[in-house]
Amino acid sequence: MKRFINDPYDVVEEMLAGYVIAHKDYVELLTEGEAQGRVVLSKTAKKKDKVGVIVGGGSGHEPLFLGYVGPGFVDAAVIGNINTSPSPDPCYAAAKAVDTGKGCVYLYGNYAGDVMNFDMGAEKADEEDDIRVETVLTTDDVISSENIEDRRGIAGMFFVFKAASAKADKGGDLDEVVAAAQKCNSAMRTMGVAMSSPTLPSKGGPIFEMEEGDMEIGMGLHGEPGVRRGKIEPADKVVDQIMEPILADLPYVEGDEVYVMVNSLGATPMQDLHICFRRVAQILEAKGISIYKSIVGCMASSMDMAGMSITLVKLDDELKELFDHPCDAPYFTQI
Amino acid sequence: MKRFINDPYDVVEEMLAGYVIAHKDYVELLTEGEAQGRVVLSKTAKKKDKVGVIVGGGSGHEPLFLGYVGPGFVDAAVIGNINTSPSPDPCYAAAKAVDTGKGCVYLYGNYAGDVMNFDMGAEKADEEDDIRVETVLTTDDVISSENIEDRRGIAGMFFVFKAASAKADKGGDLDEVVAAAQKCNSAMRTMGVAMSSPTLPSKGGPIFEMEEGDMEIGMGLHGEPGVRRGKIEPADKVVDQIMEPILADLPYVEGDEVYVMVNSLGATPMQDLHICFRRVAQILEAKGISIYKSIVGCMASSMDMAGMSITLVKLDDELKELFDHPCDAPYFTQI
Repeated sequence: MKRFINDPYDVVEEMLAGYVIAHKDYVELLTEGEAQGRVVLSKTAKKKDKVGVIVGGGSGHEPLFLGYVGPGFVDAAVIGNINTSPSPDPCYAAAKAVDTGKGCVYLYGNYAGDVMNFDMGAEKADEEDDIRVETVLTTDDVISSENIEDRRGIAGMFFVFKAASAKADKGGDLDEVVAAAQKCNSAMRTMGVAMSSPTLPSKGGPIFEMEEGDMEIGMGLHGEPGVRRGKIEPADKVVDQIMEPILADLPYVEGDEVYVMVNSLGATPMQDLHICFRRVAQILEAKGISIYKSIVGCMASSMDMAGMSITLVKLDDELKELFDHPCDAPYFTQI
Repeated sequence: MKRFINDPYDVVEEMLAGYVIAHKDYVELLTEGEAQGRVVLSKTAKKKDKVGVIVGGGSGHEPLFLGYVGPGFVDAAVIGNINTSPSPDPCYAAAKAVDTGKGCVYLYGNYAGDVMNFDMGAEKADEEDDIRVETVLTTDDVISSENIEDRRGIAGMFFVFKAASAKADKGGDLDEVVAAAQKCNSAMRTMGVAMSSPTLPSKGGPIFEMEEGDMEIGMGLHGEPGVRRGKIEPADKVVDQIMEPILADLPYVEGDEVYVMVNSLGATPMQDLHICFRRVAQILEAKGISIYKSIVGCMASSMDMAGMSITLVKLDDELKELFDHPCDAPYFTQI
């Protein structure tokens, strides 16, 4: 296992300890009571009379969740153990920490454990503190189910966080923030490909077996099965196989304008991401779909997994305005 | 080889083709004449009457070089083949493309090939176009030589680029820009550790052999030999072995204030980087050295190499002002 860790059971606590010092101008860690040391709170939370935006999920997907906490972006991230939902109490504590009386929204990927625990956090916030908490699940993983509402959330979560946070920062009420998150989720599709398992510190090795030289098209962030496993193919052929189901599903059609993300799952070099992006751009151009803006980098990882995902978001004026809204978080700053 | 590429000999051209579309608001690729398709030029180059800042070197270290081209930061990056210096002509073309009559500075790491080719570019710019080009080499790799001027440049290049670019953007003349770059380089030390070789597309596999489970303390960005190879140790012990030579070399002492960078060499997860950063912070606190700001992420890679490096920059008021100067490049934006 090619990892820099100490005791495998201290990984999350030590990561958070480092995170809040490295990014001390942006965040603090809530350690007391229900927060259980698992709530990363923006230093600007509650500084503005706005809807609170809370994101979260298991750790191991950094910079996802905590990396987007900062002014103009997310107010708090609730952090679980690796690939495990946070418990209900820190979800509740986050709501208490960010609510200004305008209510909060929980934004996360559609995974059963997260749904159960965040829902319990929301109930407690309602019952004990009369805080209204709404939830929007991200369901962008196009191959994870036929039914959109059953799909998992993967790298596209970034865009849902961004749209909702911008709407909140611009003064939108809770219903408007929820509507912005839902609109973004509906306009977005993602699909990934993996060439290795991430390594799990507590196991001291890969989470699942994968032959050297194999890839799996459609694999999820936690190694959920994809559509096909086979030998690694040329980048253009891989991209073609990802773009086809994405484009067909919404569908994205001639005249559409999109935001594109090519995301590293952890160990894939930026060189390769740009080679893949080039192919995405060729395909979109051939279809008459124009690219508004693009993000190419590691925005939602699976630790040291080799692989990447492609996300398209179909834009309208409102989504463009929300995505362009200035924000400043440790892993995404926009002027 | 876990890579998304097409023809191994097209990697750099295809990467650049993708890069300039993905970041079309920031850069364009100079394809004509001496530029040979290897100059990534800021769309704001020459828009301001200022000293031109040009960086470059072999590719395979992304986001290093091209990722920092943008307003308030670098004006142009000259791109070589993987782990290979760019040729003299694109170095020359970059100077012509950014010079406003105030001269230019070439900033890059101290490698023989780069020195030879950038020097030839500077000569041509002087002879053919009467452009004054100065050079500052980065020499931050603390273990690469006893003599500071013989040391290689690694991740600390980022800080040299930032300091010089800020000085130029604030209206400094060429001598002042050179002085800012030199000051930053003198105040900075870096050391790395690797757990794998990067993979070379043209070779279809690792550049050099490394036993699974081994690490090499002090290894360079291209696999240059370090100080010691052995079994992978706990993160804290690894960090201790890196921090000791860094701290002793300048030396950094009680009362100093530093900018810290913990940099992924490509495949090391952000989780691990923050665990390592936590240890760096503990060591600095124990020594009475305070942390001004920190960067934790992949700023200078060796493609898919597993490993990380630690950089410290000793600060004074001028360096702080330069590092805090706003800039907006695809891989580093600061408000």
